[in-house]
Amino acid sequence: MSDSISLGPGREFDVIRDLVRRWGESARGIGDDAAILDVPAGCRLLASTDATVENVHFRDGWLEPDEIGYRAAAAALSDLAAMAATPMAILVAMCVPEKWRQHLAGIAEGIGQASRSFHAPITGGNLTRASELSLTVTVLGYAAHPLGRDGARVGDVVYVTGALGGPGCALDAWVSGRQPSRDHRARFARPSPRIREALWLASHGATAAIDVSDGLLADAGHLAAASAVDVCIELDAIPAMSGASPLVAARSGEEYELVVTMQAPVDEHLFAREFGVPLTRVGVVTAPREHTPRATLRSHGRFVDLPAGHDHFS
Amino acid sequence: MSDSISLGPGREFDVIRDLVRRWGESARGIGDDAAILDVPAGCRLLASTDATVENVHFRDGWLEPDEIGYRAAAAALSDLAAMAATPMAILVAMCVPEKWRQHLAGIAEGIGQASRSFHAPITGGNLTRASELSLTVTVLGYAAHPLGRDGARVGDVVYVTGALGGPGCALDAWVSGRQPSRDHRARFARPSPRIREALWLASHGATAAIDVSDGLLADAGHLAAASAVDVCIELDAIPAMSGASPLVAARSGEEYELVVTMQAPVDEHLFAREFGVPLTRVGVVTAPREHTPRATLRSHGRFVDLPAGHDHFS
Repeated sequence: MSDSISLGPGREFDVIRDLVRRWGESARGIGDDAAILDVPAGCRLLASTDATVENVHFRDGWLEPDEIGYRAAAAALSDLAAMAATPMAILVAMCVPEKWRQHLAGIAEGIGQASRSFHAPITGGNLTRASELSLTVTVLGYAAHPLGRDGARVGDVVYVTGALGGPGCALDAWVSGRQPSRDHRARFARPSPRIREALWLASHGATAAIDVSDGLLADAGHLAAASAVDVCIELDAIPAMSGASPLVAARSGEEYELVVTMQAPVDEHLFAREFGVPLTRVGVVTAPREHTPRATLRSHGRFVDLPAGHDHFS
Repeated sequence: MSDSISLGPGREFDVIRDLVRRWGESARGIGDDAAILDVPAGCRLLASTDATVENVHFRDGWLEPDEIGYRAAAAALSDLAAMAATPMAILVAMCVPEKWRQHLAGIAEGIGQASRSFHAPITGGNLTRASELSLTVTVLGYAAHPLGRDGARVGDVVYVTGALGGPGCALDAWVSGRQPSRDHRARFARPSPRIREALWLASHGATAAIDVSDGLLADAGHLAAASAVDVCIELDAIPAMSGASPLVAARSGEEYELVVTMQAPVDEHLFAREFGVPLTRVGVVTAPREHTPRATLRSHGRFVDLPAGHDHFS
């Protein structure tokens, strides 16, 4: 993507110029073939890419254009939160069908909102026509000590941020032809990547983390597999939104909350006061009971089975 | 994207595991929410993202699956070449319709070939279903002194790498229902990002560069605008492939050759011996003749007009 100064003529460039103008201070250094960035001394670079596709991640009528843009950027930024990284840049590749052209400014506005909220300037991108709307957002961040999925140890305490189930309830409602409640819809449309929260957790003894994109139990399972441990979650401890059962909360994907393992219990009240978001202890890390490390769900001392989580290829 | 160790069950993960296996040594560090990378001390980070979409950048039957993958990665890497950066990582977001599923391994193989050829490990990605094939490739690189578009100065000499016109001729043939010649087709299907060539040029006095994606004259125009100079190109000096007229060579896009302005003439023969690719002096940088800096085309002392270049939104 190129900026308002260095661009030649052409309708594609006019569109890009308009987007860059809308982004204002959020767009930085656009105008060369590649963005130039600096990783702070002593820090490592974190990079992740995430695609949002019409009719896969949302359907027509579910979201406003600005929500589509915001959500695409927030979902990508959540991968940086999961690693306790500080965002430094967003690159956004937009594939835009003719019928979506009129909404491009709204989509860009949402991306700009996420950029401003999480101090991640938009430093580059790509714009092309397509027959289906898709936004691929690449995020770059830095961390002196990135938090992986593989650091959980037996005896660690398992926490989750926020209250779960909103996106799951919203999806259930839409798919059933109902309108979701305002709160459930908001959690789907405007997820909050837990950037600042992750830095706090990392500095308070976090050993591993993952963001909840496939569902709490599924993502805890990825963390368990990477760490070669079992992650045992108490069903009744899961923080569920009003209207969501604990089972729905355990399955609900695209939450963009964090599951974190901690060396020792932390002050949940302090966390909640600091961020206005609950931090809830939901389980413990144990030695694997079977050959394959996994996440398990328990209720009143008994294991509970849960249907599989989200899978784009199922 | 996650690796073969840390992944839970699910068909999406099986597909990713298969891709990572195929990539072998080319896939590195896949398995966390974000890739962890290190920029060499004293270097700056370069980042660019580029999308390839079915029916926009190619049509069914034009390319083999491995060529689609190779070309998508090569086009993105070319943006690093344009900045004289050394590649350090590729992230690839794949949106794959059901009918393309059987070709996914071939597409991945092509991405792997580009990764190996240019020493850019595949460090992350995203896989989602879609109704249209698109590949969004993000490339990360580093450079102590990135080369911009804005450094051209009056009196600089203008060079272009390679021989132009192949992709333009191939596209003309396909669109007219003919088969392109093997050479023209190869230049479209397997472009060569000029990574090593760019480092050589940067160390031999390059002041500005851009890669030829919109067409030589159009991209020289972007460079002219960024540098606030005129770039005057001699039509008859443009290195054209056999079968391509100089005018076709001046317009042909998606070449992924480089246009470079140099402080002084360099040894073109030395360059050709070193890289097996011609380097051709095609013009000079002058003060802007009109209010708007631009690239102009001259033949036998007279200015030649050329229809506008490539524009995805025209």
